[in-house]
Amino acid sequence: MVVYLVGAGPGDPDLVTLKAVKALKKADVVVYDRLANEEILDYANGAEMIYVGKRAGAHSKKQEEINEILIELGKKHGAVVRLKGGDPFVFGRGGEEMLALLEEGIPVELVPGVTSAIGVPTTLGLPVTHRGVATSFTVVTGHEDPTKKDKQVKWNYKADTIVILMGVGHLEENTREIMKYKDPNTPVCVIEKGTSPDEKIVLGTLENIHQKDINPPALVIIGPVVDVFKNIKNF
Amino acid sequence: MVVYLVGAGPGDPDLVTLKAVKALKKADVVVYDRLANEEILDYANGAEMIYVGKRAGAHSKKQEEINEILIELGKKHGAVVRLKGGDPFVFGRGGEEMLALLEEGIPVELVPGVTSAIGVPTTLGLPVTHRGVATSFTVVTGHEDPTKKDKQVKWNYKADTIVILMGVGHLEENTREIMKYKDPNTPVCVIEKGTSPDEKIVLGTLENIHQKDINPPALVIIGPVVDVFKNIKNF
Repeated sequence: MVVYLVGAGPGDPDLVTLKAVKALKKADVVVYDRLANEEILDYANGAEMIYVGKRAGAHSKKQEEINEILIELGKKHGAVVRLKGGDPFVFGRGGEEMLALLEEGIPVELVPGVTSAIGVPTTLGLPVTHRGVATSFTVVTGHEDPTKKDKQVKWNYKADTIVILMGVGHLEENTREIMKYKDPNTPVCVIEKGTSPDEKIVLGTLENIHQKDINPPALVIIGPVVDVFKNIKNF
Repeated sequence: MVVYLVGAGPGDPDLVTLKAVKALKKADVVVYDRLANEEILDYANGAEMIYVGKRAGAHSKKQEEINEILIELGKKHGAVVRLKGGDPFVFGRGGEEMLALLEEGIPVELVPGVTSAIGVPTTLGLPVTHRGVATSFTVVTGHEDPTKKDKQVKWNYKADTIVILMGVGHLEENTREIMKYKDPNTPVCVIEKGTSPDEKIVLGTLENIHQKDINPPALVIIGPVVDVFKNIKNF
């Protein structure tokens, strides 16, 4: 028995790793949540498919429930794949699932994926690092409720590039926080539905990006690398 | 004509994406520098191979020379693959190559890869983000000469996890800088030759990690997520 925690990459089914495909081909059962592209599931021919993500109008399963499902399946089957968008450890709660499985003595194998935070801008030609422009980047989740007490996300990042995953919901509050540490004119690029045929790019600055028409799921990239990209695209 | 800028992933040939394999299969010529594992070149059966990386006892080609080679090949061949470890835009100087090619009117296609910064710790079971422990991570190069004037890298990162690529050469100076902003007891994990059979893990703290026996190439991971990993591994 083994549970593979597998990263599905940013969406394009060709941006899955060979190792992920091999795990899917071996799977007796695949446990997945919302994926940018469900075609990836086709690699697991014949496997049972269990969806544990959000349904329109219904609550998603709690993490504890998902852990229980994985433990139960892990004990019953030879090979279980837990498939997650991007990389399983980049805001995927993969760490919690790994710990829950290991605690029950179920072996876990980790298969990294191309995180959207890098894969989406790279595919577009937007470099998160660039000589003379950016020697560091920070990846952060925009998902935390900005009205929460004891917030973990402080937004005082000093890296040259900031990439926000799940960045749309609290974009106005989060960019306001970032402006305490960065110039309001810092360029921002928002990419909706990255690597998909419906991809959409919105450009702005820290000060005005929240006023634009932006819909989730989207990635927010902040920093002078956006200008490198703007120049080649001649926006 | 097209030049594919392709990420080869962290080393394990199974951690290449399907898209990278497809580009390699189409390639007339592959231009590569030092790869963690040259088996990846086997996907490009029959292609001409041009090595532009460092040779023992010899200087590596300058970036301008590499750009010239890519432009010349791009004009001559139907499909050129420029293969880089990790992701082409994470300290890979892929941005410069892309701009040089576009300036000459040569189409460029970008194929992201699994960056070592995430793929290596994920494969080990070391989550760069973890609920209640780390909601952000910064990736930075350790390569900049710390005695240089007008350094770009400031080391004042506030993210919960810091990942240093090429982190061995200046480890003592860089950890000293980071200790101005983070507790000297912050746990550190160094991974030599990640995802390879020769992988080696060294644990320590910001204060003492530079005293350990560490050899490049290695990745340095700093932050409380290292404790999550230490506990599961029972070091």
